[in-house]
Amino acid sequence: MDFAGPDWNDRTVPRVSQDHLDARRRQILDGARACFARHGYEGATVRRLEEATGLSRGAIFHHFRDKESLFLALAEDDALRMAEVVAEQGLVQVMRDLLSAPEPADAEHPADWLGTRLEVSRRLRTDPEFRARWAERSQQLTDATRQRLLRQREAGKLRDDVDVGVLTSFLELVLEGLVSHLAMGLPADDLGPVLDLVEETVRRHRRSA
Amino acid sequence: MDFAGPDWNDRTVPRVSQDHLDARRRQILDGARACFARHGYEGATVRRLEEATGLSRGAIFHHFRDKESLFLALAEDDALRMAEVVAEQGLVQVMRDLLSAPEPADAEHPADWLGTRLEVSRRLRTDPEFRARWAERSQQLTDATRQRLLRQREAGKLRDDVDVGVLTSFLELVLEGLVSHLAMGLPADDLGPVLDLVEETVRRHRRSA
Repeated sequence: MDFAGPDWNDRTVPRVSQDHLDARRRQILDGARACFARHGYEGATVRRLEEATGLSRGAIFHHFRDKESLFLALAEDDALRMAEVVAEQGLVQVMRDLLSAPEPADAEHPADWLGTRLEVSRRLRTDPEFRARWAERSQQLTDATRQRLLRQREAGKLRDDVDVGVLTSFLELVLEGLVSHLAMGLPADDLGPVLDLVEETVRRHRRSA
Repeated sequence: MDFAGPDWNDRTVPRVSQDHLDARRRQILDGARACFARHGYEGATVRRLEEATGLSRGAIFHHFRDKESLFLALAEDDALRMAEVVAEQGLVQVMRDLLSAPEPADAEHPADWLGTRLEVSRRLRTDPEFRARWAERSQQLTDATRQRLLRQREAGKLRDDVDVGVLTSFLELVLEGLVSHLAMGLPADDLGPVLDLVEETVRRHRRSA
């Protein structure tokens, strides 16, 4: 009985390092992101997740309890990264980044991120429990946007005749629209000037017409 | 053999009137709209479509070749109705109507319309053939919006320092965002002032800050 031998009991099998765990987790998230984007949540079967991540189902579900948990981790990951960019560069910059994204095949491509986002939208509609869980995450982005706008206002760069809450909602609405637009595969080459208009709308007014 | 009797062969069975056909078609579309909204495209099984329309599968698929055709007819129907409102009242009014919509249970409720729209979004992402077919329909809305803005500009109500194409794309982007927002079940009570801001953005500039 090899498995019951001294090596096994003595735990001389090397322990998996935290770095290794993190890297593995990242590998699963990246593969799963592409897989969800391509096939949708329902279409992302375990077999496809194995192919996309290059790992066995055993390895995948060692890190994530089930497909649901994997998807939530992914969506959470995206929301966090986005809030970081917003805090540093503002929401309009997030939108510009979306427009100037590289090749569709790239793992960091927004289409993948969009896939997650669209799936979130779909489930928010149909799953009240998911909606409650998601509310906290989306609040992070709102907070980051609001904080950034407040700093801009203090610096005198923001228009001061409209409430910061309204400007925050405005920017979030445009972002939602952009996500939707890109996700639908509609042409985006002409949206640069639209984002200029959006940016101008939240900025301090020009003095004259 | 009753079925082979003279009545049957002589076609004395009353012929179905066009009005009746139209009403039946409308009944199917309204039921299907609610059904797709509640269950999504895949979840809208034939049995559920029967329940939602109050008609047998035979009756439903007499009018529409298959589920795909039924869905396309529905999406087309929505796009046309929307283009009509845009032509008369503008795209911002379409958005305001979305905000002030009545009870969710209402058959005319935008949530149903949103369901179709979200499904369209999803399929545009995953189905290139559908994307090609859909391109024509979405062009109608763009044209209606653009025509309306051109008339507004002639009437001196529109800002004249930004291209009408850019203003059209801007409004469409905000609409997409609003659709997405509402579809996700996010609170919409605070969006009135955001739409005021959107409207102000396309209008003729104020003279001073």
